[in-house]
Amino acid sequence: MKINKVVETCIYSSDLDSMKKFYVEILDLPLVQEEKNKLVFLRAGKSMLLIFNPAKTSIDNYRLPTHGAQTPPASIHFAMEIEEHDYLRWKELLAKNRIAIEKEVDWNGSGSGGGSRSLYFRDPAGNLVELITPGEWPVES
Amino acid sequence: MKINKVVETCIYSSDLDSMKKFYVEILDLPLVQEEKNKLVFLRAGKSMLLIFNPAKTSIDNYRLPTHGAQTPPASIHFAMEIEEHDYLRWKELLAKNRIAIEKEVDWNGSGSGGGSRSLYFRDPAGNLVELITPGEWPVES
Repeated sequence: MKINKVVETCIYSSDLDSMKKFYVEILDLPLVQEEKNKLVFLRAGKSMLLIFNPAKTSIDNYRLPTHGAQTPPASIHFAMEIEEHDYLRWKELLAKNRIAIEKEVDWNGSGSGGGSRSLYFRDPAGNLVELITPGEWPVES
Repeated sequence: MKINKVVETCIYSSDLDSMKKFYVEILDLPLVQEEKNKLVFLRAGKSMLLIFNPAKTSIDNYRLPTHGAQTPPASIHFAMEIEEHDYLRWKELLAKNRIAIEKEVDWNGSGSGGGSRSLYFRDPAGNLVELITPGEWPVES
């Protein structure tokens, strides 16, 4: 009896159009499903990234349990795994789209595999997005 | 140039001891790293589940970019994939530990693969946790 993985990760925004533009047009995540002003579901490789409008998910008349965080002031964090050989190309893509890199971290062997690197930046809602190369965590790619 | 997966998913709580007890002792996620009152990092199969105390991550003097959501009132949602043949055993485990199932959903073919099922319940911080069998999303297990 085991957990395979976290298959859905959810973030929140009241402005789904700008989030869709950011994640689909810039970061190139395939759109799986959307409902105007309510949700945008994206595929992020082997995972799903779900973006909800918290005004629609934090109320009791929704058919699923309530959830959500107001961003801002909240700022959810998650990290997507990229390949080491693509690291500089991701930096170029962010620069080309005028997305500021808030922090760049060379983990320098602090993790299990060592030598992984991270780029941190914000999505339009202020959520903290990280792109990280493999090696920091004790999980398979 | 591709995204492999969401490798880190973060949730938040001001009471890390009760979260650790819940996720490690009951849901059996292996503990990878912890810092008292600041963070608990867990392995969730091929993913990492990171639990932060937002009081420590939403301030500027932390060495990483600021992030975090106060739970409550926020309630972050994420879903972990389980095997179909373990579904009833997970229900039994929740019942044995007196964790209320807030909702049970049979997706009934609404997703790409069809026939997947979900259990929804709350962690001690009020975050909405889902256990879902494969088939709903267009991602490999």
